[in-house]
Amino acid sequence: MQLNIQRPILYSYFRSSCSWRVRIALALKGIAYDQIPVNLMKDGGQQFSAEFKAVNPMQQVPALKIDGITITQSLAIIQYLEDTCPNPRLLPQDPKKRAQVRMISDHIASGIQPLQNLSILNKMGERKMEWAQQCITSGFQALEQILQHTAGRYCVGDEVSMADLCLVPQVGNAERYGVNLGPYPTITRINKALLELEAFKVSHPSRQPDTPAELRS
Amino acid sequence: MQLNIQRPILYSYFRSSCSWRVRIALALKGIAYDQIPVNLMKDGGQQFSAEFKAVNPMQQVPALKIDGITITQSLAIIQYLEDTCPNPRLLPQDPKKRAQVRMISDHIASGIQPLQNLSILNKMGERKMEWAQQCITSGFQALEQILQHTAGRYCVGDEVSMADLCLVPQVGNAERYGVNLGPYPTITRINKALLELEAFKVSHPSRQPDTPAELRS
Repeated sequence: MQLNIQRPILYSYFRSSCSWRVRIALALKGIAYDQIPVNLMKDGGQQFSAEFKAVNPMQQVPALKIDGITITQSLAIIQYLEDTCPNPRLLPQDPKKRAQVRMISDHIASGIQPLQNLSILNKMGERKMEWAQQCITSGFQALEQILQHTAGRYCVGDEVSMADLCLVPQVGNAERYGVNLGPYPTITRINKALLELEAFKVSHPSRQPDTPAELRS
Repeated sequence: MQLNIQRPILYSYFRSSCSWRVRIALALKGIAYDQIPVNLMKDGGQQFSAEFKAVNPMQQVPALKIDGITITQSLAIIQYLEDTCPNPRLLPQDPKKRAQVRMISDHIASGIQPLQNLSILNKMGERKMEWAQQCITSGFQALEQILQHTAGRYCVGDEVSMADLCLVPQVGNAERYGVNLGPYPTITRINKALLELEAFKVSHPSRQPDTPAELRS
């Protein structure tokens, strides 16, 4: 019998921090996949095309076609991968530690990123940079305090978790919007340690198929 | 008020949609708890007090003290309750259905609610209502389409799930901000069916310890 093994397809944009979260998960779990770039800036935003709207009515990246279904929302995708491909684990076995991982992940995914994403910033006009800085700063102040209770080498203890998959792309956004990271030594230390790992390197915005030549590294 | 140290303590605000999500979960799972109201409007916002900041550095409700830890972020709280008190189940056993539940939950919790929460609306001045309506409308357009693939009696099939715990409070916000629900028959139908259930009734903003007399029902 011949098996038709289809690789998952990730609809992604090199610079999207939510897409980066998923790329890290796929890399850590060693899942080979194909990427279809959706350029959020070109043609007034390719995510608004009828073609992409059929893939994701939310008109956002990432979206992952896998096992015959399409999943959207980065944390839902990551937890589906966790459910179906549990090694290496991205959620600790202990329920209290799992709660910490989800709390930090949601703090970034619901409490910081949505407030400074492209569609909101586009509505802010001249206040764009100031708005992004304010949202990230206020979120990072809380995060720095939380990490003082939860962190080891990484966000929660010494194992890489879903929280770390949220942290690194959010720090990437902070740098892009000129946020001063001085007041956040724990965030900065963990981010640096994570960026040493191969899965965070290969998934980096500077190394994607749709990364423009001048931003490649 | 004398608190029973055995019971979980929920820091909550009657009108907070994220607090309502957690109250529904506690009611469905039959977990008795005490509520400490945090009035987001009074004294410039009681969530900003030093006392509450020690409970939750994010200065947001809900926060749940349970089993010796404090958990914040509503979906992290709900999933901790699911991990430690699995009956009745709020996440389906099938990984694909779990992914649908998480996708819808995150669509509301990351894609709609944060954009129309109190702290953002306070920054919008005169544009407040228009902004809230726009965010909810655009989120509901996508949600209505998604539900056409996933819904049975409720958001995903015929069992109440975490997605339903997000849906009802978000519809409550939509009504509060005068969003026309005509174009969303599936959302409206599911919301109505859920509001018939006892757990959704007892957790309703109109029936909390801190609900002002004029809003009680």
